[in-house]
Amino acid sequence: MSAASFRALHDRLRRQVPWGASDRRGALNYLTPERIAAAAGEVRLGRTVTLAAPVASSAPDNPEPGTRHMKRLPGEPSDVPGVSFAADQLVMNVHGDVDSHIDALCHVNHDGTLYNGVRPEAVTSQGASELSIEDARNGIVGRGVLLDIPRLRGVRWLEPGDSVTAAELAAAETAQQVRVGPGDVLFVRVGHRRRRGELGPWDVAKTRAGLHPDAMVYLAERQVAALGSDSNSDTAPSVVEGSAFPVHVLAIQALGLHLLDYLQFEDLLPACEAAGRWSFLCVIAPLRLRGGTGSPVNPIAIL
Amino acid sequence: MSAASFRALHDRLRRQVPWGASDRRGALNYLTPERIAAAAGEVRLGRTVTLAAPVASSAPDNPEPGTRHMKRLPGEPSDVPGVSFAADQLVMNVHGDVDSHIDALCHVNHDGTLYNGVRPEAVTSQGASELSIEDARNGIVGRGVLLDIPRLRGVRWLEPGDSVTAAELAAAETAQQVRVGPGDVLFVRVGHRRRRGELGPWDVAKTRAGLHPDAMVYLAERQVAALGSDSNSDTAPSVVEGSAFPVHVLAIQALGLHLLDYLQFEDLLPACEAAGRWSFLCVIAPLRLRGGTGSPVNPIAIL
Amino acid sequence: MSAASFRALHDRLRRQVPWGASDRRGALNYLTPERIAAAAGEVRLGRTVTLAAPVASSAPDNPEPGTRHMKRLPGEPSDVPGVSFAADQLVMNVHGDVDSHIDALCHVNHDGTLYNGVRPEAVTSQGASELSIEDARNGIVGRGVLLDIPRLRGVRWLEPGDSVTAAELAAAETAQQVRVGPGDVLFVRVGHRRRRGELGPWDVAKTRAGLHPDAMVYLAERQVAALGSDSNSDTAPSVVEGSAFPVHVLAIQALGLHLLDYLQFEDLLPACEAAGRWSFLCVIAPLRLRGGTGSPVNPIAIL
Amino acid sequence: MSAASFRALHDRLRRQVPWGASDRRGALNYLTPERIAAAAGEVRLGRTVTLAAPVASSAPDNPEPGTRHMKRLPGEPSDVPGVSFAADQLVMNVHGDVDSHIDALCHVNHDGTLYNGVRPEAVTSQGASELSIEDARNGIVGRGVLLDIPRLRGVRWLEPGDSVTAAELAAAETAQQVRVGPGDVLFVRVGHRRRRGELGPWDVAKTRAGLHPDAMVYLAERQVAALGSDSNSDTAPSVVEGSAFPVHVLAIQALGLHLLDYLQFEDLLPACEAAGRWSFLCVIAPLRLRGGTGSPVNPIAIL
Repeated sequence: MSAASFRALHDRLRRQVPWGASDRRGALNYLTPERIAAAAGEVRLGRTVTLAAPVASSAPDNPEPGTRHMKRLPGEPSDVPGVSFAADQLVMNVHGDVDSHIDALCHVNHDGTLYNGVRPEAVTSQGASELSIEDARNGIVGRGVLLDIPRLRGVRWLEPGDSVTAAELAAAETAQQVRVGPGDVLFVRVGHRRRRGELGPWDVAKTRAGLHPDAMVYLAERQVAALGSDSNSDTAPSVVEGSAFPVHVLAIQALGLHLLDYLQFEDLLPACEAAGRWSFLCVIAPLRLRGGTGSPVNPIAIL
Repeated sequence: MSAASFRALHDRLRRQVPWGASDRRGALNYLTPERIAAAAGEVRLGRTVTLAAPVASSAPDNPEPGTRHMKRLPGEPSDVPGVSFAADQLVMNVHGDVDSHIDALCHVNHDGTLYNGVRPEAVTSQGASELSIEDARNGIVGRGVLLDIPRLRGVRWLEPGDSVTAAELAAAETAQQVRVGPGDVLFVRVGHRRRRGELGPWDVAKTRAGLHPDAMVYLAERQVAALGSDSNSDTAPSVVEGSAFPVHVLAIQALGLHLLDYLQFEDLLPACEAAGRWSFLCVIAPLRLRGGTGSPVNPIAIL
Repeated sequence: MSAASFRALHDRLRRQVPWGASDRRGALNYLTPERIAAAAGEVRLGRTVTLAAPVASSAPDNPEPGTRHMKRLPGEPSDVPGVSFAADQLVMNVHGDVDSHIDALCHVNHDGTLYNGVRPEAVTSQGASELSIEDARNGIVGRGVLLDIPRLRGVRWLEPGDSVTAAELAAAETAQQVRVGPGDVLFVRVGHRRRRGELGPWDVAKTRAGLHPDAMVYLAERQVAALGSDSNSDTAPSVVEGSAFPVHVLAIQALGLHLLDYLQFEDLLPACEAAGRWSFLCVIAPLRLRGGTGSPVNPIAIL
Repeated sequence: MSAASFRALHDRLRRQVPWGASDRRGALNYLTPERIAAAAGEVRLGRTVTLAAPVASSAPDNPEPGTRHMKRLPGEPSDVPGVSFAADQLVMNVHGDVDSHIDALCHVNHDGTLYNGVRPEAVTSQGASELSIEDARNGIVGRGVLLDIPRLRGVRWLEPGDSVTAAELAAAETAQQVRVGPGDVLFVRVGHRRRRGELGPWDVAKTRAGLHPDAMVYLAERQVAALGSDSNSDTAPSVVEGSAFPVHVLAIQALGLHLLDYLQFEDLLPACEAAGRWSFLCVIAPLRLRGGTGSPVNPIAIL
């Protein structure tokens, strides 16, 4: 896609955002109480499934791995009467190319603004004074829909560099007999996690499967509330001239869509297959990190 | 309570756990698919509420505060074409006396064992090989019930050092016209957060309101799946001779109850009052920390 | 001191810096090879003394304490044949009000510039591209001189809020029979550590003993290479209208003096007294933190 | 070397340690005041040189890199009158295979004891109660001697897997016209840093140049006070059957020698060549990490 076409697409998507200049919630506005209440109706089996992967250790796609260190061991003598505790401490980057996380709307600056014209100076060394992940503190709760592209194509996974188009998303809907609608949290599986599990990690910053920018038109039309993938939704190398992360720009900065990166659908997939359904109640609960640019998350699907 | 009485209570509660010697999920076993599916029926308004407080900064109850530092600012030049990112890094203790978190079943060693006879040596410097928070990776999803003790007593909060008895839990049920049952996630509000908000933080390690150990009998009888509080559920100073954390010991080590500490109910309270109901769908999604002794969490109530 | 007087003092001191517009080492330039070689002559007893305090835990002057967590315990089974290691991890702020550290010349922005006209934009989220602590990577080695102000005044320590003037530094020289000269690393003891040890920590951000801004004239005249104190050299509350850290501004930003904050002289003091001398070889070895604004340090005095 | 030979060597070296059962300083005892004072006589040029490398970023030999994040940027508005500060925070492992650090005597457990019979249980999750790096808080100051093995062999570096024998150390002494003696801090250059700089990093845990265990006999005879290398002193794969780190075991656990790992001699080498001498005053100043298993360091050579 040429730089000019991308710019036109970006401007078109940005113009159609209906929430007004002071909005800071973006596509979360599609999650009306009625839709949340309706989404609870997706629960039939009472089965819950994690959509996150365990926090990863060092690998070619994880140059600064999160670490967890013990502060206290329960087998050691304690100075507290009657009990010894196990306790630990966590150090981790919020973003990166392997741990499951959510991007706040302050995450992306394109052409001098964050989402909805907010100035990038709203994010300082002290954090984001606007568009931080705290704006999603009450959770993202709605109907989740999983579209499984490897299933559609009859492959085990999409190879790095490959892109999922809007047409494929529509074809997956038809094949899976599900229709993505307003307020849905859309999950697009490209098979990244399965490939990583079977072939081992690689340098994902250089090459990975993702969505084609034209898929953002589809998301905008369907009025989805958030987008998650087992990749980070952006293909590498980029198919857009002069833009390394066109989906991040279109989704977060233009449409106000929270992105969920590097999720894990290998547990959800058999659960959906067994249930014969591809929709479920979905609950995403970011940590309450004031000023944060996102959060590690463990989205839960409830079938 | 004398040390002997506490020991008798502990042994009685521990003996009645019905899950067998190899169980590692404890009271989460009460969360059957049927109960999870039924809990979804609690959703009527489509309103979601956070039960966590924002990660706190240094205070008398927070000697080692979590920190969040920027890795990249979106207003700075980027070496990525077409975009600049905001990114940050998180350092935080999993436990402590102010940030909302969940305790895994490996958290408590009493009398030489963790829950269900697991040896404390299962937790090493490399983490917990058994009973880690990963055992709750699919989330804790069920009916949540809030019992509001300050409301029952007609006070703004319980003063530090005060304890909630089993009888008071039963009285709160009657007053609130709700009954706690099998698989419920029980939340007991003692007003800790409101007191902290209005009077400022104090040294919570020394004095705080909590539950009386006899309340654990009530929880066991009602077969609750997990217990959360805006305190850490344990009164300080302890009412039990020779045991500084009797509720932690009885709940986690004897009953296999995951505890949720230092939650925040100041948003949930008016929501329940407005709805005229004290039950809701509750989703708790711990981070996937392999070997972890717990996790920071943001439990979501859905009314 | 009025704002106007301070401005005049600042401009006067800044103008007299002789190193030229491209200089990035500031007063370290006074540490010529000749002076370093001569400083080695201070070593007579072969006695070495630390000038740092142990990394501190949480306290009123330490709201974000450094932490050290174990990664491996030597008593645990090892997967390495023939050996088990003890290993740990360190998290700490470089600055703050209790741990001994050195300030790099990028640390202070006054009136829109860092030292020697360097723009503050030279420091981004990626660190300092100029004036970082890496400029002192070969260590600061020279003659150290300790001036002990409580000794001069016949008190155990200076009370918080009190200031050491240039006249007092001169008086201490006379009393101690030592003269501060070009290239010396000057240490000024105000008794902060002793007060902290005996009375316990207090909120040092609000009130502490330090140097009067006029002492910077003395340092400039004597051409000292670096300045250290058991306080942070700046009195609180400030004696200068509109400037909370006048000594930091004059020393670091105007004169290019590396400051060493919150050192510990309680070991050095008796060593000097026993030796009957107040000068010694001093070696300061900052960690090699690329882009860093300073470093934790353990300066060593060799008598 | 067979396991039996290694055991015999270990026992022989351990038996000859002359400091008594309560000693905790090991070979630092060789650093008598007389020797420290004499070492100051090595200073002639007044030239100082760092023996550390900059803290490294992610690489095949650095799976958990240290990170440094900004806490405050000096170009941002400040709430402190008259000044804006640059400040940062440091997270780093003390050991590892790339950052220059010192190993404390608690670092190595062999055959159920640390140095001098101290039980490994002296190191708990709270740190080392004995043999921590705090025992070197007054610094390690003495005559440093650099033996350059690539120079002796006429190569640019030793290839990974190669070992320096006692005989080679003696040959290097002869070639360089220097003699290692009691209390010296010995630095053995194998060319690791030069190879890394020219060929790039590799998986050092698997293959690296080091010292042959018989070199420890030489060190014991010469009564050196500490040993540093641009490698970690241990060859990989190990030449000893059943012991992956024989030099660590012999040096730290048997002889009580502090090891300095992954130093950098590329600055020192030309300085020594220019001076026509291979000895210098050396100052090593570990951070004051209570209970610590070592410390990042920046040893300073003063010629």
